[in-house]
Amino acid sequence: MTNTQTLTNQITTILNALLLQGIQTAVLAPGSRSTPLALGLAQLARENKLKLYVDIDERSAAFFALGIAKTTARPVLLLCTSGTAAANFYPAICEANSSHIPLIVLTTDRPPELTKIGAPQALDQDHFYGQQVKQFWQLPLASDDPAECHYTNFIVQRSVIQATSLPCGPVHLNLPLRKPLMPRLPFSFATNNIPQKIDRLTSKSSLTSADFTALTTKIAGKRGLIIAGPSEIDMPANSLLRWAENAGWPILADPLSQLRGYDSNCIISAYDILLKTKHSILKMLKPEIIIRFGGTFVSASLASWLKELRVPTYYLDPNCELNDYTETTTKLLPLSEADFFENCPAPVAQPSWLSQWSKAQEIIKRSWDSTSPQKVVSEALLPHLLERALAPNTHLFISNSMPIRDIDSYYLPQTKFCYLYCNRGANGIDGVISSALGMSSQFQNNVLLIGDLAFFHDMNGLMMAYRYALQLRIIVINNNGGGIFSFLPQVGSTDFETVFGTPQNLSIKQTALLYHAEYTRIQNSADFVKKLQHSPHGLEIIEVITDRAANVEQHQNTVQQIKQKLSEEFY
Amino acid sequence: MTNTQTLTNQITTILNALLLQGIQTAVLAPGSRSTPLALGLAQLARENKLKLYVDIDERSAAFFALGIAKTTARPVLLLCTSGTAAANFYPAICEANSSHIPLIVLTTDRPPELTKIGAPQALDQDHFYGQQVKQFWQLPLASDDPAECHYTNFIVQRSVIQATSLPCGPVHLNLPLRKPLMPRLPFSFATNNIPQKIDRLTSKSSLTSADFTALTTKIAGKRGLIIAGPSEIDMPANSLLRWAENAGWPILADPLSQLRGYDSNCIISAYDILLKTKHSILKMLKPEIIIRFGGTFVSASLASWLKELRVPTYYLDPNCELNDYTETTTKLLPLSEADFFENCPAPVAQPSWLSQWSKAQEIIKRSWDSTSPQKVVSEALLPHLLERALAPNTHLFISNSMPIRDIDSYYLPQTKFCYLYCNRGANGIDGVISSALGMSSQFQNNVLLIGDLAFFHDMNGLMMAYRYALQLRIIVINNNGGGIFSFLPQVGSTDFETVFGTPQNLSIKQTALLYHAEYTRIQNSADFVKKLQHSPHGLEIIEVITDRAANVEQHQNTVQQIKQKLSEEFY
Repeated sequence: MTNTQTLTNQITTILNALLLQGIQTAVLAPGSRSTPLALGLAQLARENKLKLYVDIDERSAAFFALGIAKTTARPVLLLCTSGTAAANFYPAICEANSSHIPLIVLTTDRPPELTKIGAPQALDQDHFYGQQVKQFWQLPLASDDPAECHYTNFIVQRSVIQATSLPCGPVHLNLPLRKPLMPRLPFSFATNNIPQKIDRLTSKSSLTSADFTALTTKIAGKRGLIIAGPSEIDMPANSLLRWAENAGWPILADPLSQLRGYDSNCIISAYDILLKTKHSILKMLKPEIIIRFGGTFVSASLASWLKELRVPTYYLDPNCELNDYTETTTKLLPLSEADFFENCPAPVAQPSWLSQWSKAQEIIKRSWDSTSPQKVVSEALLPHLLERALAPNTHLFISNSMPIRDIDSYYLPQTKFCYLYCNRGANGIDGVISSALGMSSQFQNNVLLIGDLAFFHDMNGLMMAYRYALQLRIIVINNNGGGIFSFLPQVGSTDFETVFGTPQNLSIKQTALLYHAEYTRIQNSADFVKKLQHSPHGLEIIEVITDRAANVEQHQNTVQQIKQKLSEEFY
Repeated sequence: MTNTQTLTNQITTILNALLLQGIQTAVLAPGSRSTPLALGLAQLARENKLKLYVDIDERSAAFFALGIAKTTARPVLLLCTSGTAAANFYPAICEANSSHIPLIVLTTDRPPELTKIGAPQALDQDHFYGQQVKQFWQLPLASDDPAECHYTNFIVQRSVIQATSLPCGPVHLNLPLRKPLMPRLPFSFATNNIPQKIDRLTSKSSLTSADFTALTTKIAGKRGLIIAGPSEIDMPANSLLRWAENAGWPILADPLSQLRGYDSNCIISAYDILLKTKHSILKMLKPEIIIRFGGTFVSASLASWLKELRVPTYYLDPNCELNDYTETTTKLLPLSEADFFENCPAPVAQPSWLSQWSKAQEIIKRSWDSTSPQKVVSEALLPHLLERALAPNTHLFISNSMPIRDIDSYYLPQTKFCYLYCNRGANGIDGVISSALGMSSQFQNNVLLIGDLAFFHDMNGLMMAYRYALQLRIIVINNNGGGIFSFLPQVGSTDFETVFGTPQNLSIKQTALLYHAEYTRIQNSADFVKKLQHSPHGLEIIEVITDRAANVEQHQNTVQQIKQKLSEEFY
C-alpha cells in the first residue's frame, strides 16, 4: 500500500520537475498503471500549463511525439502504462536515438513484488530499450524520505537536460507505482514546495564574451568559493589561480585536483578537517555562491556541508553529465575549466573573505606542526610526513578506503607540488598495485600508499614490477585487516573480526622476498622521513604497523585538538 | 579455414590503424585465440614502434593499462584471448568508464560457428561489458573484400578517437578469429598499404583564431565543396552562405539540410541526378577538398561518388561520432557548423569553379522545365510540381522509401523556402503519418508526401488528426504496393508480387471516409497544382495513382534525357 498523499507528492514532484525543465507538450497512451501521472497531466492541460495529446495506439503516440520534438527541436514527454505498451514505443525511440531527437520516455511499472513473478502485464522494464536510449533511470517507489524526493526531482530534471544536450536523444525513466493508484485530487502544483530548478547557461557549446561578462556581473560582489574536484588532465592551473586571486575566492582543492602544493594563498587544502570540527566559525566561512568542477571530491564532510548550505552552485561540466551526488547544482555551465577561467572576467574581490579561510587553514597547519614531533608513525600522521619527505614532482598513487581519506584530511603541502592519483571512478580497493605499476612504467620517482588488505588483494600485480624492473616505493600501512570498518557502527558486534576486520595474518616481508623487493619496517617518524629521502630504485616495500582501534581514537582526537585550536586562535 | 595471408592482412590493418591513432603502449594478457595480434604486437615492440607489457593475470593487466592511461592521459591498448580472460578485465573497465580513462579493449573471440554451441572457452562476448563502455564494436571476420578491410581500418581508428573524445572512456572491440591463427611472419607494417589516417583537429572543444587562420591557409587555393547533410536545428544558414559565397564553393544541399530554396548561386540541389548521369563533365566538377556536416545525406549516388573520389574530407562533428558510412573522412573537426563558419575566415575564391557547377545545375533545371508540360502526374514529376505549388514556409513531411529519394533528385527550388522533414535516423516507413501529425500540431500549412504502403502501415495514426482537428494535406502516391522494389534485381522473379510488390488493394477513399478527411483523386498536373494552391484546412487526402513498372522506366528516361541535355549544352 502506498499512502495516497505520498503518491500525490511524488507525482507532483515529477511533473513540477518536467515543467521546470521546459516540457510544454506531453503525449499519453492511456492505461491503468499510469493513472496518477495521466490525471496530473490532464489537470496541467486544463490549467494551460502544458499541451496534452492522448493516443490509444502507443506506436502512433510515440511517432506523434517524435514529430513534435523533431520539428520544434524541443523535448516532448511520452507516457504509458506497464507491459507491451512500452514495447510499442520502441520503433520511434530507435528513430529518435539515430536522429538525435529529444524524447523523455516515462514508462510506469509494477512495484518490485510484482515483477518477474508471473503477475499480469508486468515485464522486466529495466534497460528496456537497451542501447537505443542515451540513458536509463529507474525512479524510486513513492516515499516520504526527503532525500528520495530530492533525488527524484534531481533525476527527472537531469534527464531532460541530458536529452537536450548535444547529441540530443531519447532518455528513459521507469517509474514503479504501488496501488492504490488514485492520487489526492486536485494536485497543488503551484502551492506545492516547488523544487529548485537546475538552470543551464546554454545548450550550445560556445559562449560570446558578452555572455561571460553577464556571468561576471551575476556573481560580482558575492562571497564566492571554488570547489576543485579530481582532475587528471588539462587543468588550467595558471588561469584558475589568477582568476581566484583577482576575485579573492578560496579554492577548496581536492587532493586529486592536482592543485594542492601550488604556492597561492587561494588554495585551501585543510577544508575536510575544518568541516569535520563543525566549529562555529564555519558560519563566517559560508559562501554566497559556489563554482564547482572536476569529479566527485573525496571529502564526505564537504558533501554534507554543501547539502546543508544549498547556495547557488554553478557546475562546469562540458559533458552535461551532472554527476553530482550532493544534488546541489543550480546552474550547469557546459564549459571546460579552461573555457571558463580563461574567458570569464574575474569579479572584484570582497575584502576579508579569503583571509578568513586562510586564517583557519593556518591555525590547522600550525596545530599539526605542534603534534608532529611524536615518534610513532600513525595513519593520520603519515600524510604529514609525506608532505615533508616526498621529493617535488613525485608521482604518488593512493589506495582507496582509508589512505585517500587520510591524504584528503592531512596532506596539506604549501609549496611542494606532487602528482596525486587514485582510482576514484568506482573507488575500489582492487587493482591498486597494478594501477600504480602502470604509472611507474611511465615516470621517475613513484610512490604508492596502500593498506594491507588492498595490498594482498592485488598481490599478483607485483609480478609486473619484477618482470619489467619498475621503480615503485610501496608504503604499506599494515593494521592487519579492514581499518575503515572500525569507524562504522558494527565495530562492537560479536562477529566483527570475522566479517569486517578480516585479518589476513600474512607476512608483508615474505611477499617482498617472493617478488625480490627491498623490504623495510619503519616505526618512528624520523626513520620514515629519512627512508623516503633516499633515492628510489626498483621495487621497495616499506611496512608501517598501526593498530585499528587506536587509529579511530587518534583520528577523533585530532579533530578535537584542531577544534580547540580554532577556538583559541581564530578570533 | 582462414587463408593465412588474409589473416595477416587483417591483423596488419588493425595494428596499423592503432598506430596511426597514436597508440604507444599495449598490455597483453596472453592466450591462444589472440595469437596473431600477440605476434604482431611483439614484432612492433621489437621494432620500437610501441611499448608492450605482458601480464599473465588479466585483472592485473587491465589495471596496469588503466594506470598508464590515467597518469599519461593517453589511450592504451588492452588485449586478451576469448572466454573468462575478457571477464577479468571488467573491474578495471568499470573504473575507466566511471573516471573517463581512454582504454582500447580488444578481445579476441571464436568465430560464429563456435559460439553459443558448447565449444570450449567460448562465451557470448557481444556487448560483453554492457553499459560500462562508451561503445561496443564487433569487427568482421578476416576477408579479402576491400570494403570490409576499409571498414575494419575505419572502425579501429574511430574507436580510438571515440575513447579519447570528451568524455573519454573505454571502448570495446571484439574480434572473431578462425583457425589457423598463425599469420605469415614477419608482418610488413611499413610496406603494407598503410591506410589513410583519420586526423583530428583538436581533442579540445574550442579553437583559437590562430587555429582557424591556419585552417584557412590549408584549404586556400583549392577547389572546395561543401556537403550539407540533414539538419533540423540551428543551421547557421547566413554565415554558411556568406562563407561559401566568399570562397566560391558550391554547397551540395541535402533536401533535409534546410538549405534548398535559399536564393544563393552556391546552393546546388541537382547533384543527385547529375551524379546519376555519370556524365564525363563530372571530371571537371571534381573537388580537391570537401567540408561535410550534418547527418547521412539521402543521395546514394553522392555516397558512391565520394568513395570514388577519396579527396581530403573534413567532417564537422562536435560529438566526434564519425557516423560516416562512406568512410571518406580524413579530418574530424570537433566543431559545430556555427563554430566553424562564423570563426574560420573564408579562403579566396577560385575563378570558374563555382560557375561550372551552377551551369550544370541550370541545364538540369531547364531540361526539367521542358519536360514538365506533360499532363499525367508521375512520381518523378511530383517534386517539381510541389516546388511550384507549395506556399513558402510550408512544413513538408516526407515518407521514407521512394518519396524522399524523389524529393532528393527532383525537388530543386530556387528561391522558395519550405521546411522539409523525414525520419532519416533509421529510415523506416513506420510511423510516418503520426510523425507528420505531430508536426501538424505545431505549425500552419502542413503537407505529407507518402506512398500507399507507408500510408496503410500507419493508418492508425490518422485518429489523432480527427481527435485534435489537425490540419494536414496528405498526398498519397498510390502504386498499390512497394514501388522501390521494382528498382531491384528481384523484379523479374515469379514470387515478386507476393513477397515484394505486396499490393494491399485497399481503398484510400474509404480510409478518408473513416477518418472524416476531405478526399480528392488527382490525375493531371494542372489539377494537382491548383488543388495545392487552395488554402489548407483540416485533414485532406489527395490520391495520385501511379504505376510501378512505368515509374522505373520514367526514372531511367529522365536520367538519360538530362545526360543528353548536358552533352548538348554544357560545353
